[in-house]
Amino acid sequence: MKPIGLVDGKIIDISENIVPMEDRGHQFGDGVYEVTKVYNGHCFALQPHMDRLYRSLRELAIPAVYTYEELTEFHELLIKKSGIMDAAIYLQITRGVSPRTHSFPENVVPRLTMSIRPSSAAIDKNKAEGCKAMLIPDERWLRCDIKSLNLLGNVLGKQKAKSAGCWEGIQVRDGIVTEGTSSNFFVVKDDVVWTHPKCNLILTGVTRTLVIEKIASDLGIVVVEKKFDEAFVKSAQEAFISGTSTEITPIVTLNNQPVGSGSVGPVTHKIQKAYWMLIDKECQRK
Amino acid sequence: MKPIGLVDGKIIDISENIVPMEDRGHQFGDGVYEVTKVYNGHCFALQPHMDRLYRSLRELAIPAVYTYEELTEFHELLIKKSGIMDAAIYLQITRGVSPRTHSFPENVVPRLTMSIRPSSAAIDKNKAEGCKAMLIPDERWLRCDIKSLNLLGNVLGKQKAKSAGCWEGIQVRDGIVTEGTSSNFFVVKDDVVWTHPKCNLILTGVTRTLVIEKIASDLGIVVVEKKFDEAFVKSAQEAFISGTSTEITPIVTLNNQPVGSGSVGPVTHKIQKAYWMLIDKECQRK
Repeated sequence: MKPIGLVDGKIIDISENIVPMEDRGHQFGDGVYEVTKVYNGHCFALQPHMDRLYRSLRELAIPAVYTYEELTEFHELLIKKSGIMDAAIYLQITRGVSPRTHSFPENVVPRLTMSIRPSSAAIDKNKAEGCKAMLIPDERWLRCDIKSLNLLGNVLGKQKAKSAGCWEGIQVRDGIVTEGTSSNFFVVKDDVVWTHPKCNLILTGVTRTLVIEKIASDLGIVVVEKKFDEAFVKSAQEAFISGTSTEITPIVTLNNQPVGSGSVGPVTHKIQKAYWMLIDKECQRK
Repeated sequence: MKPIGLVDGKIIDISENIVPMEDRGHQFGDGVYEVTKVYNGHCFALQPHMDRLYRSLRELAIPAVYTYEELTEFHELLIKKSGIMDAAIYLQITRGVSPRTHSFPENVVPRLTMSIRPSSAAIDKNKAEGCKAMLIPDERWLRCDIKSLNLLGNVLGKQKAKSAGCWEGIQVRDGIVTEGTSSNFFVVKDDVVWTHPKCNLILTGVTRTLVIEKIASDLGIVVVEKKFDEAFVKSAQEAFISGTSTEITPIVTLNNQPVGSGSVGPVTHKIQKAYWMLIDKECQRK
């Protein structure tokens, strides 16, 4: 049950040195990634993760040298070789190794590295009772739609939230609430679920898409993808964040003030339950 | 005269795998860097580069575990061991290696890697006759003052310029001209040199500071650090970029239009010549 890695299809020790200093991932953050959760030995929602991976590669003009079938096989190999049944699989592709220069080098081969680490499937306190969050400035670049390795803005934002005793920082750009540092953000107001529209300023989360296109739709809950500001959030009855590791996590305190009643609201609860049922079904989990 | 590397003080082959996949530099771009030029076997302006390195580390709360004396020694060791007399030395420090999580991990040791590569000291065509540049949108994050590994905005901008047959892309944010993708930007209008003020939206270039505080001051040229827009640039008599590798490079064509007379202007020429004289003096170059 030890974490392991995979480089270009070959299993390795996760602590092994596998990157040369002139990998463009290491010098420019010139690469993309995905994190997929494994429940009961099965990858959840692998296809939309890989679809997004291919989109990120296209946006950065990094050649996609692996097929979907190969990437699926690598995920399954990591589960099998590690024996870890509840896990997170990290997958990264960089533009490749080349003497340092800003513009794209020619004749460079993209590099794939992956790792698997245990990730509990248990419902932790944050998910059961809700978490604390705070609003922070969105200092990231203008291509947040690309799931790239340029994550320092997210890192500094998450650290700011953590230092203030919060689980997540909800980012605000030009007065508009965008998303969490590692999650998408939703509020519930008058039985309608609101979230920032898809654009260059947010990542199109796989969980976000499932909430909008599958879960809310099945439950008959109305979701609007529209911009809203801080004041709107402060007047909301419920708030939650979504993400691959976050799943559906209620926010019960924002900027040290209770959200709505200060406990998990009914709409959030329904969506969270439906999300876990999707996992149960796809991953044959009892 | 082969390029070589250095990891935590030890000389290595530059193509050696020296980074594990969970180095935060590789997964988040969570690190900082400097590039210092070597002329005639001597580092130029090493102290201001290292001063800026320590500032970048402080801004990211990465502990500075090497003294200035040690870093100087490593630069000299790379020159001596490689035998490369005209070179660029790349220095990178990441937060260290830790299982992937956005917030700062505890008990992690920062990692230092360096490399030396030949870099001609000859005056190339761009520097002698001026280069072509174009205005592009500034899509970077809001902490461009930190010399971090999150360089994808710079990479995409440089590539856009290169694809259009230009040497540099000059970035524009909210109508204001900020800087080049790997250089600072100056225009000359009515004998006054203009450049964007120091703030979170530009990198405080070592060459930029030398131009303002030493060269222009010695030559009696007035420099103003004030914001200006695209229209202002288009009405300028001269334009140039500055940087460690760029040195002082005139811009003679912007967006396919000649800048001023379309050849290297007198103010740019004076500043360029004075910059080379500074190098000659500090690096005992004839």
